[in-house]
Amino acid sequence: MSQKVAVYRHEHFNAAHRLYNPAWSMEQNDAVFGKCNNPSFHGHNYELVVKVIGVPDPETGYVLDLKWLSDLIKREVHTRFDHKNLNLDTSEFQQLNPTAENIAIVIYNLLRPHIDADKDLQVRLYETPRNFVEYPV
Amino acid sequence: MSQKVAVYRHEHFNAAHRLYNPAWSMEQNDAVFGKCNNPSFHGHNYELVVKVIGVPDPETGYVLDLKWLSDLIKREVHTRFDHKNLNLDTSEFQQLNPTAENIAIVIYNLLRPHIDADKDLQVRLYETPRNFVEYPV
Amino acid sequence: MSQKVAVYRHEHFNAAHRLYNPAWSMEQNDAVFGKCNNPSFHGHNYELVVKVIGVPDPETGYVLDLKWLSDLIKREVHTRFDHKNLNLDTSEFQQLNPTAENIAIVIYNLLRPHIDADKDLQVRLYETPRNFVEYPV
Amino acid sequence: MSQKVAVYRHEHFNAAHRLYNPAWSMEQNDAVFGKCNNPSFHGHNYELVVKVIGVPDPETGYVLDLKWLSDLIKREVHTRFDHKNLNLDTSEFQQLNPTAENIAIVIYNLLRPHIDADKDLQVRLYETPRNFVEYPV
Amino acid sequence: MSQKVAVYRHEHFNAAHRLYNPAWSMEQNDAVFGKCNNPSFHGHNYELVVKVIGVPDPETGYVLDLKWLSDLIKREVHTRFDHKNLNLDTSEFQQLNPTAENIAIVIYNLLRPHIDADKDLQVRLYETPRNFVEYPV
Amino acid sequence: MSQKVAVYRHEHFNAAHRLYNPAWSMEQNDAVFGKCNNPSFHGHNYELVVKVIGVPDPETGYVLDLKWLSDLIKREVHTRFDHKNLNLDTSEFQQLNPTAENIAIVIYNLLRPHIDADKDLQVRLYETPRNFVEYPV
Repeated sequence: MSQKVAVYRHEHFNAAHRLYNPAWSMEQNDAVFGKCNNPSFHGHNYELVVKVIGVPDPETGYVLDLKWLSDLIKREVHTRFDHKNLNLDTSEFQQLNPTAENIAIVIYNLLRPHIDADKDLQVRLYETPRNFVEYPV
Repeated sequence: MSQKVAVYRHEHFNAAHRLYNPAWSMEQNDAVFGKCNNPSFHGHNYELVVKVIGVPDPETGYVLDLKWLSDLIKREVHTRFDHKNLNLDTSEFQQLNPTAENIAIVIYNLLRPHIDADKDLQVRLYETPRNFVEYPV
Repeated sequence: MSQKVAVYRHEHFNAAHRLYNPAWSMEQNDAVFGKCNNPSFHGHNYELVVKVIGVPDPETGYVLDLKWLSDLIKREVHTRFDHKNLNLDTSEFQQLNPTAENIAIVIYNLLRPHIDADKDLQVRLYETPRNFVEYPV
Repeated sequence: MSQKVAVYRHEHFNAAHRLYNPAWSMEQNDAVFGKCNNPSFHGHNYELVVKVIGVPDPETGYVLDLKWLSDLIKREVHTRFDHKNLNLDTSEFQQLNPTAENIAIVIYNLLRPHIDADKDLQVRLYETPRNFVEYPV
Repeated sequence: MSQKVAVYRHEHFNAAHRLYNPAWSMEQNDAVFGKCNNPSFHGHNYELVVKVIGVPDPETGYVLDLKWLSDLIKREVHTRFDHKNLNLDTSEFQQLNPTAENIAIVIYNLLRPHIDADKDLQVRLYETPRNFVEYPV
Repeated sequence: MSQKVAVYRHEHFNAAHRLYNPAWSMEQNDAVFGKCNNPSFHGHNYELVVKVIGVPDPETGYVLDLKWLSDLIKREVHTRFDHKNLNLDTSEFQQLNPTAENIAIVIYNLLRPHIDADKDLQVRLYETPRNFVEYPV
């Protein structure tokens, strides 16, 4: 067995979004995205759980400092997305439908360069308490 | 002691909103409402807990049928507000700032006519797991 | 303002039950109780929150010892109802429909004699995370 | 790294059950299953989390539509088991002890034919907030 | 019915404590406080819910700004008690046993001067998810 | 696909601790561990989830008896760590910094000898609802 340990940090942000494919008609978007295609937007309290896997440092007993991870998430994710309209206010979702799947991939890509290459990273995103996603798997 | 019992039903809806006072300047709105004044809107998973107080019917043991209460909430609240922009898509918040306080009062007023007059009604609304309100008190 | 403080203890038990009125026809019971009238029973994880209000003892800083309250609940409630069929296995619900309202009243009556008369007692019972009741009010 | 994403949907149902092995004596069943062998049954609020792993559709950004998954769970699981006695009212547990492990395997087998073969499926079932199982692993 | 609304803010802090009465013998303290009398201390994640009741301001729709309330709690409570030993590191519990009851009263008294006199204040403190208190009642 | 199933049991304990490296100066410890280096200690409600993977016994339908697992955790973990100061009262953390990572590894090593060798074991430990770890991965 490896001595690798996974550490997790739970953060959150609130945002508005609309799900639709601009290449489709309104009817096709309604058929696929239903109420999520409301052109006036709707919104969520996104709950974000970031997981990092690594070997604890023998001097500290930490895989990494979760305070540092919390600050990283605040800087890279919270500043970008909290109290924002994902479709209108962000560069990341100008061309990308802000489904939970795509938001999780975007958040992973924002955080990955800041985590040491010998550590694994995974993102879990709750769009609601009943709908959530995980990336990568 | 009275034989009155309180019964509660928990439902939820997702919506976008923006907090601002149209009589104020953008600067004044930013100073008071901060990020909540984003003109592109942001959003929440609203969790709604409806409380009804009454004497259980001796034949059923129910204060009221919680399935009926759940259907009432779906019809009066969910249909109006779920996956909506509270500022743009609803008549209730055309002139009223959609703070959690005001949303709770509006929901109370929507439900009150449908609950027997001899029963008390109270609404608790979670805007986030950390911010919530209750009306009346 | 009084120096009264409320203290709460959260416990749980699992039980089966069926809701029906033996004076009614099967059709009438189905109309009122729906799936809860299944003659083979269904069940719940009941979550129980017991609240006691009193003045903290100046020598201990306790309204009462919550370990003692936990033991009382185990003895009076858990032993009677946990992993039981409320309709078949208990004396309390031989003549009484085991709705959440009635279960809460029964639990209150079981606990009340064991709590000092100068302290108030209230019971909250979750039948599910979405349906719960409180007695007295 | 693959672009696979896991999506989850949380549903629930309430049921009664009894754990026992009909090939054993009452004493042996009591020794192994304890209070869970109550012949009058007991019950639970089962919380069910269904996980599907796949590559998001580039046109929708969805691994699959979670509304569709929710409807599938309601049709295949909720209709069969909600407000039922698993031992008496279902064909699945006529010969099979309704432990959480076996219920999870049964639910997996009910859902698997309806999920595309190139997607992975996993079921997590909470019998109580403190006891839960996952299948497959 | 009044137009008063209750607003709530949820915060948290972590601390160590020991429960004992210095006027008593070790045996008497063990008899009353059990494991909580460990002279080396033990600790908790305290979850704090602060409730303020008032009439929403007609210009803002706020009873008060929950961001302001959150900052107040951080300044008055978090700075004093987070990651502290309540018995050793604080002036408030030099002479006062840090039971949940007494901690709630102390927190109420710290916050009360900062809340307008026409508003009511109540504090709920979770010592664990299973043991919690409320003051005043 | 294998017929292996994962079963989980959720328990909890409360403890005090201090994070520091005795080979370092107070300044270096403050720089790395911040408030967690308080020499008077602070504390947490640790929530512990133990996962065991195995093939259900065909006679019982159990991977193992979760009541047995609960008793094992109480005996090996709760007795050692509940209402204790991890630094002062335990032999395990005399030389080992009681970070969540190290506590999880220690708990794994305490439980592993008691679980059949053909079963896998994993420990998840919540130091707070927002910070948690898992071992092994």
